[in-house]
Amino acid sequence: MKQLENRKWEILDSEYLAKEGDWFTVRRERVQLPNGHIIPHWYIFEFPHWVNIIAITKEGKFVLIDQYRHAIRETHYELCAGVIDPTDESPMHAAKRELLEETGFGGGEWEEFMQIRPNPTNQINMQYTYLAKNVEYVGKLGNDPSEDICTHLMTEEEVYELLTSGGIVQALHQAPLWKYFALKKEK
Amino acid sequence: MKQLENRKWEILDSEYLAKEGDWFTVRRERVQLPNGHIIPHWYIFEFPHWVNIIAITKEGKFVLIDQYRHAIRETHYELCAGVIDPTDESPMHAAKRELLEETGFGGGEWEEFMQIRPNPTNQINMQYTYLAKNVEYVGKLGNDPSEDICTHLMTEEEVYELLTSGGIVQALHQAPLWKYFALKKEK
Repeated sequence: MKQLENRKWEILDSEYLAKEGDWFTVRRERVQLPNGHIIPHWYIFEFPHWVNIIAITKEGKFVLIDQYRHAIRETHYELCAGVIDPTDESPMHAAKRELLEETGFGGGEWEEFMQIRPNPTNQINMQYTYLAKNVEYVGKLGNDPSEDICTHLMTEEEVYELLTSGGIVQALHQAPLWKYFALKKEK
Repeated sequence: MKQLENRKWEILDSEYLAKEGDWFTVRRERVQLPNGHIIPHWYIFEFPHWVNIIAITKEGKFVLIDQYRHAIRETHYELCAGVIDPTDESPMHAAKRELLEETGFGGGEWEEFMQIRPNPTNQINMQYTYLAKNVEYVGKLGNDPSEDICTHLMTEEEVYELLTSGGIVQALHQAPLWKYFALKKEK
């Protein structure tokens, strides 16, 4: 594929508007395009990197969760997902930790499935998706009281039906699941 | 599929931290979970709804663009995309307007292809994806100096290669394109 020219903007000014941790650290920049045009206010959200997991048990069941999402005030099916500890955690470690913490499933064979930018327009972070095969229930260690999560074991056909019927709404979960089914149908 | 219980959080307090238009309007809420746990700071970003378009010409070429994305300081291939005017615009109208403005392509047959939540954790908005078939070049009306966009006409095979090789990075563009290929391979 043709190599694209990276038409970078020049940063004329940059200031932090907020530094309230993982969920609200924001810069505002004054930038100049290569054509000379100046945009006075460009907002950049400094979220840490995220992970999610397509986890499949030895019996071929997909490990999904459901969770209430406050910004839209609705509860939907999702992949297990979480935040990579910005201090020193690898994406793979974070993925294994999140699956265990949220669902109690572990073990199996893990591979990186894809990398996705949640929104390169205004978010600096990456989302790493892992494919974990042959996981099994090893026990939940305890519940984070700030998370109210239910686990669901589903057949591949049920997951596909969820996807096509709008049961999974989040872009970062739709993208890897549609990729999974596109690659599968290729074979 | 089993109907999920919507385990809504109670809003104990809500205040605007910023009201700087379409790209930085933020609420901070104090919320209580059904289990009684209180989260003192939950951030909600009030972005307007967005659209993007899988546009295919009469000759079967996909109309892609490339654009520099400042938060990650990189330039990648993308679907044509944009913001729905919050005052009175329909998603379909916004999609047709954005395709014409950014690429000069119009006409053809349009249908809604999917709805995607960019991030229901902390964004209130929806992304509407349209599939436009048999579009043709009708001429660009002018360039928005704040947008530095190049148009690319690609075969379906080239788009698939882009997807599998990491040439399209944004979740909101990966999800509909992987869905397009999953449905196609089903036939």
